[in-house]
Amino acid sequence: MPLITPKILKGTRDFDTKTMAKRQFVMDNITSTFRTCGYDAIETPAIEYAETLLGKYGEEGNKLLYQFRDNGDRNIALRYDQTIPTARFVAMNYGTLTLPFKRYQIGPVWRADKPAKGRYREFYQCDIDIIGTTSLLADVEVASVISLLFTALGFNDFVLKINSRRLINTLLTSLDIPAEKQTAVIRIIDKLDKIGLEGVEKELTNSINTQTIQALRSRISVTGSNAEKVASLAPLDTSEVSQFLSLCTNAGITEQNIVFDPSLARGLDYYTGMIFEVSIPDVDVGSVCGGGRYDNLCSMFMNTSVSGVGVAFGLDRIIIAMEERGLLSDISQACDVLVTLFDSASESASLTLLSRLRDAGIASEMYLEPQKMKKQLTYANKRNIPIVIIAGPGELEQNSVTIKLMDTGTQDTIPRDTLVTYIQDVLK
Amino acid sequence: MPLITPKILKGTRDFDTKTMAKRQFVMDNITSTFRTCGYDAIETPAIEYAETLLGKYGEEGNKLLYQFRDNGDRNIALRYDQTIPTARFVAMNYGTLTLPFKRYQIGPVWRADKPAKGRYREFYQCDIDIIGTTSLLADVEVASVISLLFTALGFNDFVLKINSRRLINTLLTSLDIPAEKQTAVIRIIDKLDKIGLEGVEKELTNSINTQTIQALRSRISVTGSNAEKVASLAPLDTSEVSQFLSLCTNAGITEQNIVFDPSLARGLDYYTGMIFEVSIPDVDVGSVCGGGRYDNLCSMFMNTSVSGVGVAFGLDRIIIAMEERGLLSDISQACDVLVTLFDSASESASLTLLSRLRDAGIASEMYLEPQKMKKQLTYANKRNIPIVIIAGPGELEQNSVTIKLMDTGTQDTIPRDTLVTYIQDVLK
Repeated sequence: MPLITPKILKGTRDFDTKTMAKRQFVMDNITSTFRTCGYDAIETPAIEYAETLLGKYGEEGNKLLYQFRDNGDRNIALRYDQTIPTARFVAMNYGTLTLPFKRYQIGPVWRADKPAKGRYREFYQCDIDIIGTTSLLADVEVASVISLLFTALGFNDFVLKINSRRLINTLLTSLDIPAEKQTAVIRIIDKLDKIGLEGVEKELTNSINTQTIQALRSRISVTGSNAEKVASLAPLDTSEVSQFLSLCTNAGITEQNIVFDPSLARGLDYYTGMIFEVSIPDVDVGSVCGGGRYDNLCSMFMNTSVSGVGVAFGLDRIIIAMEERGLLSDISQACDVLVTLFDSASESASLTLLSRLRDAGIASEMYLEPQKMKKQLTYANKRNIPIVIIAGPGELEQNSVTIKLMDTGTQDTIPRDTLVTYIQDVLK
Repeated sequence: MPLITPKILKGTRDFDTKTMAKRQFVMDNITSTFRTCGYDAIETPAIEYAETLLGKYGEEGNKLLYQFRDNGDRNIALRYDQTIPTARFVAMNYGTLTLPFKRYQIGPVWRADKPAKGRYREFYQCDIDIIGTTSLLADVEVASVISLLFTALGFNDFVLKINSRRLINTLLTSLDIPAEKQTAVIRIIDKLDKIGLEGVEKELTNSINTQTIQALRSRISVTGSNAEKVASLAPLDTSEVSQFLSLCTNAGITEQNIVFDPSLARGLDYYTGMIFEVSIPDVDVGSVCGGGRYDNLCSMFMNTSVSGVGVAFGLDRIIIAMEERGLLSDISQACDVLVTLFDSASESASLTLLSRLRDAGIASEMYLEPQKMKKQLTYANKRNIPIVIIAGPGELEQNSVTIKLMDTGTQDTIPRDTLVTYIQDVLK
């Protein structure tokens, strides 16, 4: 058989051990924050009926759905996000769920997209959602998780941009933009970061007249403090935004971290209330978190109206941002002890030492071939293993072991029986 | 738009919060054992070029591969297991890997299979592999992880069946079964658990004559202790199996947990040495772990011969077995504290309390609507939250809070400032 060139699909990635150590560190932090805030995990399948996923992402989203026919001629798709599957889950389990239902889900999603820097075909989302309440406190709760998490990760200067879809619609209505055009206009406004204000205005000329565009521009590009921006939008009803901002202060979120941005739109069709987007200053990776309130999400699946609010944290972008800030430089996966193998004759003795260490819960491994000691020490060095145990014929005879600390190079020979407690002391 | 019936594909599953609590408990145990034994995590993509995955599973395996064409007209497939992707990873990174390379990978795999009890289209595998050494100590190391893990999970009576592909081939050669027929014969022997000895004999009649089948039967269905079974196979070369068994004893694996089974075959084409399969007595779920040595795995991708040994733990089956044994009955995800909301006027006070608890790392949530206290307590009960905090107008005035312990129903009113330390004491 000819050789197959080993390669992976563009936009997908292998994560090696060093990268995984960092990813797991970040994911552990995320999971821990979600749990601290009382969110429970659920998991939905990666593959769903395509029709389940096609209803809510809009045309552009649907093009990005990985679809295929399975052996039973069914239309299947890989999940595009975890929000629609969660809506499907809620609809299927509505009678038995304790509401409000606070769930988190961490897993990969897939997009049949053109890969680019920070844009992948397979990437992780970390979602929280609160389902079954219209209370603005739920929106505040989500902001509070955002604040706790980015602070825990070391981003004290994270910027949480907020706006309200309701407010945008009110604004567009006040400018006489008819309801049926508003979704299209919002989608164009959403491109602000990508194509700039002039680009947005250019695209808008197809939908609305120049005068209206000018008016819209002046309303969404206000500056100043949050309070000043809220005030500038009078006489529009800004009560939702101002109440949200005030409750966030009560929830302990530092005011400098929240920015009310009337131009924030978020492209997805399904948002209906507060919307959120988080960025990290001076890190050019796009938003690291985004979401909002979607009061009609389950409407695809059932007639009962179910309110929800949630955000997705972009694991990959968060990691890029942490790397750029040097927040991940010390993270490693290495285990604590390497038991070396002096020669074939000492296999059983080394295995017994290893077994004792592991039984005591000490992360340890054994070198699996009787190579020269120098090679085994090099292995320990490369793997960042801090403690090496040597049990050669001399030690065997005296019922002892030699312990070498790799950072200082110091060696100590101790009675074999005291091995576990000795190592436990070193690791303290 | 008409409603879409919310449903999921057969053979895939939603995991609700209760199930996820159990799954995460088991996965945490698995991860922790892997790390204790010095395995580092890697992760390969879920989607790969189909040609990467088609080479090694045999015809039956290839039929079970979920394949599709993507927007760029590429043949893509969902990974069938994590072993071939790891081989691909090793081939791509061969120059830079520290060998032997001990890696673990935990993630979903997909099979376009007919769903049945315990057989899913999407399920998790938890793999360990040691790559880059032919040392039998690596095989023993894998057995040692198996032993540590199943013991940690509460299965002191797990049964690790072992055999050697090399020994099977030697046996088949000794019976004059030509080399080119041996793989087919091994595949049939592998069905022993499914179709029984008579079924196997019936299928074998197409490949070999009755006399040979009789001889094969008598060699592979021996009984007695491991030593007796090894002895019964003389004059075949059984040194690999006996050395393995002896080293396992040195590694602290209890002898009762290991059974040498000359009929164990493992269907996959790529095994070349020791093979492993774990079952749990009286739990009818099939094998919960399986694997072996594959000395030529990377040969699909490169000319360098790379030896490896590894096993996959079946998370779903392990969970079924734990459920049947009652080993998961106490696992829950609930957070520790519910801060109730007395009325709208106390929103800010409750938010502040919540913020203090979370800042102290106490897992806590707040009821998000000013409902009747009874409803809020019912919510706490349903969610198994043990501690409830009440801060009504009375408490607000006196700068105090009331703490209710849900298991006993006792209440205590304490100064607001002492809340965090009080809760920390309760949780100790």
